[in-house]
Amino acid sequence: MKNISIIGSTGSIGTQALSVVDEFPEALNVVSISCFNEIDAMEEQIRKYQPELVGVMDPDAAFNLRKRIQAEFPDIEVLSGMEGLIAVATCDSTKMLLTAVSGMVGLRPTLAAIEAGIDIALANKETLVAGGSIVMDAVAKKGVALLPVDSEHSAIFQCLMGNKHEELKKVIITASGGPFRGKDRAYLEQVTLAQALKHPSWSMGPKITIDSATLMNKGLEVIEAKWLFDLELDQIDVVVHPQSIIHSMVEYKDRAVMAQLGLPDMALPIQIAFFYPGRVENTKPSLDLAEAGTLTFEKPDKDTFRCLALAYEALAAGGSMPAALNAANEIAVARFLREEIAFLDIPRINEAVMHQHVPVKAPTLEDILDVDEWARTVAKSL
Amino acid sequence: MKNISIIGSTGSIGTQALSVVDEFPEALNVVSISCFNEIDAMEEQIRKYQPELVGVMDPDAAFNLRKRIQAEFPDIEVLSGMEGLIAVATCDSTKMLLTAVSGMVGLRPTLAAIEAGIDIALANKETLVAGGSIVMDAVAKKGVALLPVDSEHSAIFQCLMGNKHEELKKVIITASGGPFRGKDRAYLEQVTLAQALKHPSWSMGPKITIDSATLMNKGLEVIEAKWLFDLELDQIDVVVHPQSIIHSMVEYKDRAVMAQLGLPDMALPIQIAFFYPGRVENTKPSLDLAEAGTLTFEKPDKDTFRCLALAYEALAAGGSMPAALNAANEIAVARFLREEIAFLDIPRINEAVMHQHVPVKAPTLEDILDVDEWARTVAKSL
Repeated sequence: MKNISIIGSTGSIGTQALSVVDEFPEALNVVSISCFNEIDAMEEQIRKYQPELVGVMDPDAAFNLRKRIQAEFPDIEVLSGMEGLIAVATCDSTKMLLTAVSGMVGLRPTLAAIEAGIDIALANKETLVAGGSIVMDAVAKKGVALLPVDSEHSAIFQCLMGNKHEELKKVIITASGGPFRGKDRAYLEQVTLAQALKHPSWSMGPKITIDSATLMNKGLEVIEAKWLFDLELDQIDVVVHPQSIIHSMVEYKDRAVMAQLGLPDMALPIQIAFFYPGRVENTKPSLDLAEAGTLTFEKPDKDTFRCLALAYEALAAGGSMPAALNAANEIAVARFLREEIAFLDIPRINEAVMHQHVPVKAPTLEDILDVDEWARTVAKSL
Repeated sequence: MKNISIIGSTGSIGTQALSVVDEFPEALNVVSISCFNEIDAMEEQIRKYQPELVGVMDPDAAFNLRKRIQAEFPDIEVLSGMEGLIAVATCDSTKMLLTAVSGMVGLRPTLAAIEAGIDIALANKETLVAGGSIVMDAVAKKGVALLPVDSEHSAIFQCLMGNKHEELKKVIITASGGPFRGKDRAYLEQVTLAQALKHPSWSMGPKITIDSATLMNKGLEVIEAKWLFDLELDQIDVVVHPQSIIHSMVEYKDRAVMAQLGLPDMALPIQIAFFYPGRVENTKPSLDLAEAGTLTFEKPDKDTFRCLALAYEALAAGGSMPAALNAANEIAVARFLREEIAFLDIPRINEAVMHQHVPVKAPTLEDILDVDEWARTVAKSL
């Protein structure tokens, strides 16, 4: 039995992770969970999984949840705020933390868990985008496992199994291209929130769905890949593959390309992280390529989808620049979701914040948190 | 420096293997080579690689070659017949034998090399099709490496790296479909030798090119995969993939499918076998999937291309049945290459020989050689 903690248990990845737990009740056990303020869903999860510890980011929601469950579950602690998240992430009895929150809020609890010697299943790309060097240093120092929980990095991770890092030539991250693949800037000027929220192959949370439409998501994945797999900028390629069947690839020095394929389903990367280094039978359908019929590939259009180019530029600038880009993007996407700005304002705001930022070299956690706050303020004002 | 022996050094795989040796002169050294009767090519190879030992299957050709090189290379021994092939295969100084001959003739030298503790790079599928259980028993007993040198099994081998055999669900062998993909039996009745020799994606020797047109080659690969990777019949699928970019795949129990991709070039599986477990940089172009554009997949048509179905039937019958099918097919293809029979006579002869054969269970090498001879006689008479 493996004890698991989940921050962000009521979100898209969190609920899919709990479905994986449901499929393997003899092998997986949930000991602590957290949410932002979704206490109806959290109350159901408490009844079902009876964790030791619950975190609710919003203090009022935490107070209300505590009142609701107190009589029935007097032993379950409900903590609030960042302290609550960190307590859930570092729960004494846990073996692995799944960081399933969206955005920069994942960084501190994830770091705290690493410091506590807990293995990490990372579904939150912002943690590595903003704090890559700090997180990877802590992982190396503590010797914990850091397992990627998104289809692309999980695919790369699988393609690297049984091979040596020095024999890797490059990684090739696949991108669905999002709902606006093939469109030009004139079209993008006019797109609505509803259009941007319709992803052709994946059902995901709103932030990542918008990031997929701008290709910022792919840019964040490029930065994440750099840290996860210790790569140089020119070792990371992106290829658009609308069917989302090949989840990503690794090219080796001998020109062999290894790929991981599957039906689009986040259960696989979650399961792989939970059971690593083993693979276990599940009840999912098998990929049938003859039924899939055709897989297509094209170059990404970095001129139209500026966010992908910005990610490469942020990585090239180094230091705290990716943290600034990430913070700007979180604010820009939130504003687009509130229909305050247009779709193409997202890259405009991201680029403007990058232009104003002088990156801090070798940033500390405090530097990253400062840059994050600064970039959010600027992005809100634009 | 790794010492290498090649039986079949003047053939398609043999010459491509020597090109790999040419690319890595500091790492690879050829100590013994053999051919059937192509002594002009062999004389050139002798001048270039100056091996210790040379085999020529045909005794007259061996005699002529000996005369030609005697004065200039008095220390190079030229041996003839099966004894010559076995001597080349078991050359004292060799570390690895590449079995690059075509057909059943590869079985005895390969077995002799295994018995002598020499690692095998196997480009000859008939060795395992006919003598699978004997060869795999010898490999296990002697603890030598047996590395597949064809694009499909090399791909499967790479997809298995870093994973456990018990976690494998099935292998999926890709097939180009050959020059007659999509055609019906009425069309196949009329096809000419010239049409059958035009393979859409691979340049290979005549036997394997015809086997690709009948899909017998894929059938032989199914049987070979059974032995190489210790699989049950229902763990081996074939999918037609005309672009020959995905070289084969492995599906694991968790539904993850691992694939190896690359441009169609036999240099890669040869190089992988020579350098295993390392991967080394080469000068080949990288696969560019955006340039490739589209990959397609379809179910194989086992009704029209009976040879593929016959391979599954032979494997299900077990014992010496695959050896009988293989021998029948070698004769049928030779007769088709001499334009004695029609294209669809190949599956007819193969099926007729199978119908007449009562398989020997757990055959010895002698049983296999007897069945081989019997099946050839029957196939010649039909």
